[in-house]
Amino acid sequence: MPEDAAHTRDAPLAPDFATHDAGPPVERLEATPTALRVVWSDGLEGRFNRYWLRENEVVEGVVSPVTRERELSLLDIPVDLALVAAERHGTSGLFLTWAPDDRVTRHSLGWLRSAAEGHWKVDHALPAQTTWDASDMPEPVSFDGTAVLTDDSALTEWLRATHRYGLARLRGLPDQEGLVQRVAERIGTVRASNFGFLFTVESKPDPDSTAYTSVALEGHTDLPSREVQPGLQMLHCRENTCSDGFSTMVDGFRLAEVLRDSDPDAFDALTTLNWIWSNRHRDSDYRWSAPVFSLDRAGAVTEIRGANFLRADPDMPDQDIERAYRAYRLMSAMAADPAFVCRYPFSSGDLVVFDNRRVLHGRDSFDPNGGVRRLQGCYLDRDELHSRLRILARQGH
Amino acid sequence: MPEDAAHTRDAPLAPDFATHDAGPPVERLEATPTALRVVWSDGLEGRFNRYWLRENEVVEGVVSPVTRERELSLLDIPVDLALVAAERHGTSGLFLTWAPDDRVTRHSLGWLRSAAEGHWKVDHALPAQTTWDASDMPEPVSFDGTAVLTDDSALTEWLRATHRYGLARLRGLPDQEGLVQRVAERIGTVRASNFGFLFTVESKPDPDSTAYTSVALEGHTDLPSREVQPGLQMLHCRENTCSDGFSTMVDGFRLAEVLRDSDPDAFDALTTLNWIWSNRHRDSDYRWSAPVFSLDRAGAVTEIRGANFLRADPDMPDQDIERAYRAYRLMSAMAADPAFVCRYPFSSGDLVVFDNRRVLHGRDSFDPNGGVRRLQGCYLDRDELHSRLRILARQGH
Repeated sequence: MPEDAAHTRDAPLAPDFATHDAGPPVERLEATPTALRVVWSDGLEGRFNRYWLRENEVVEGVVSPVTRERELSLLDIPVDLALVAAERHGTSGLFLTWAPDDRVTRHSLGWLRSAAEGHWKVDHALPAQTTWDASDMPEPVSFDGTAVLTDDSALTEWLRATHRYGLARLRGLPDQEGLVQRVAERIGTVRASNFGFLFTVESKPDPDSTAYTSVALEGHTDLPSREVQPGLQMLHCRENTCSDGFSTMVDGFRLAEVLRDSDPDAFDALTTLNWIWSNRHRDSDYRWSAPVFSLDRAGAVTEIRGANFLRADPDMPDQDIERAYRAYRLMSAMAADPAFVCRYPFSSGDLVVFDNRRVLHGRDSFDPNGGVRRLQGCYLDRDELHSRLRILARQGH
Repeated sequence: MPEDAAHTRDAPLAPDFATHDAGPPVERLEATPTALRVVWSDGLEGRFNRYWLRENEVVEGVVSPVTRERELSLLDIPVDLALVAAERHGTSGLFLTWAPDDRVTRHSLGWLRSAAEGHWKVDHALPAQTTWDASDMPEPVSFDGTAVLTDDSALTEWLRATHRYGLARLRGLPDQEGLVQRVAERIGTVRASNFGFLFTVESKPDPDSTAYTSVALEGHTDLPSREVQPGLQMLHCRENTCSDGFSTMVDGFRLAEVLRDSDPDAFDALTTLNWIWSNRHRDSDYRWSAPVFSLDRAGAVTEIRGANFLRADPDMPDQDIERAYRAYRLMSAMAADPAFVCRYPFSSGDLVVFDNRRVLHGRDSFDPNGGVRRLQGCYLDRDELHSRLRILARQGH
């Protein structure tokens, strides 16, 4: 039995900042040289690799009990490591004995249980995503804005909807400079860009972007010219006395679903043929080459990239260009089809958040002399939302 | 002939903010219904698609002469568009006549020439990358820090080296709070993170990261737990009176080259098997699932992701886990091999910039009572560097 301080603590620490119930009783504990197998009384099984167990003990020199970061190099673990024995210790602990170095390590059973349950996967605490069209989403799902600023349960509800639909609205917020930043920081770190930390959208003289005029904006993603488009966009409508200039939102994931079925050639062109997306200003020249829809290795759509006004050269063999234009035209027509467009007035006091890599946003033109239309916005990366949802779940929300 | 104002300007505008020489004389000009072919006297050929030509005219309603962004939707271009005739206009212009709508458009020949030369590709103005080991790079390539702050030629030289090697050093900078931000903003927008906008690296009580202790840090990338790791990292050594704690840098692209040849099974495991990278704090929980090396669609390595202290669970089928550990161990051993490690003292007044998605950085342990060691750092995304290099090239550097 080990005798150092860490090993004589009552409950073993887990290599994170959460606490873990030991879970239901353990029914079987099997040590083979390369893995530990645990079977719980509810039937859940966990299989844990030898190296993984060895490098995840929370003890000075392996995983630091302070930073919860690993201090041990993989090179310090014997390559011929073998698990010799596994033994229960109290209700929440486990001792493992190892060859060839006769070391005994101590582990939290609750933490092993949570690993077997998949709590440490990337999608933990992230609600499933649901795609939508205009009939599913006649206007954005809405929440009380002032509640979100102070109440973590309200925050959780809003953020779960944001992840699920890629679009959710807060209402009843005051006209306040920088309020959008306060809301954003309820999630995480704001992502600045060449358009600033926060940006103001209104009709401007000498604009450096179509957004800063009063013309209609086709549904688009922001900053497609960047390697990674901003994940979340927030727009706070501080004041809008124009009767026109409605907002539009289109679920790019739904477009992809429909296209994949209805026109496989167009879908193929939109997922494999690259366009150069280009954002040229006096002091910056951002370009990125990418298709309209990005797929992960399993073939699932992870992203739409599209802003017709920033689409530059086809970056593809000559013989594919006509196909690429046909597919882009088809996608554009769908994105303008009222059947797909959630179209609604953007009212003073509303703040809309959307996944800029999923949802195409746009607006109708407005009469710049018909009133004041003043928005303030900012960006965050997608994983800020994921992190916040995991922390809220860790806190019981 | 068209008669509106834009068409009677002497030189046609290009859809960007640069100016373009007309280039050598045009030898052939061929209009087919779907494309324009231009052959210059030096033999260069350009082939320009009908839709692309039509949507890139700089005139109100197509590409705005003010914002240089497109105002025309692809849906507004006839699908049966046909190029009828092409005609030279002065030394720098071109008129194109179209069916079925009898429109005449005007284009800058210099701009077409630059497109044929590939000036609008993503890699324009980016020097080729060269990989290195310890013998190629006994210490970082160095530049005069104060010159870079004010002189665009010095800036260009430094940034070209940064792109080429993924590592370059400035020397002779003062010990000044926030100086690293001034240097970063010579490139572009700083990327903030949960560690702040700027971060200070020194030995701290109650640290939330191993970086903030005095222990050795194995070569690693920062923030592997984020979907996109910071592209550039800057570290300004404001003061270092410790004689130990040397810095280490390893070219991850070179590791990949060697592994691809010497151990194809390890290379395959490192490019296809995902680990969960996890950064757990009291108020954040970032996770991302990715292999160690990322490849583009052509099979080229674009990125290394690796920080042993933030490597969490294998996110792969059980039968691959032993292979994944073997490969990671091999990569770690190479990254610690003096043959690959650029190892050097980090001196007061130095500022090092490196591509955090290419170069593994680390440090030896130091005696926290042996002196003061205080760094200030920040991150930028890779494409900020690309944009700045393109702008410097546009300005003749």
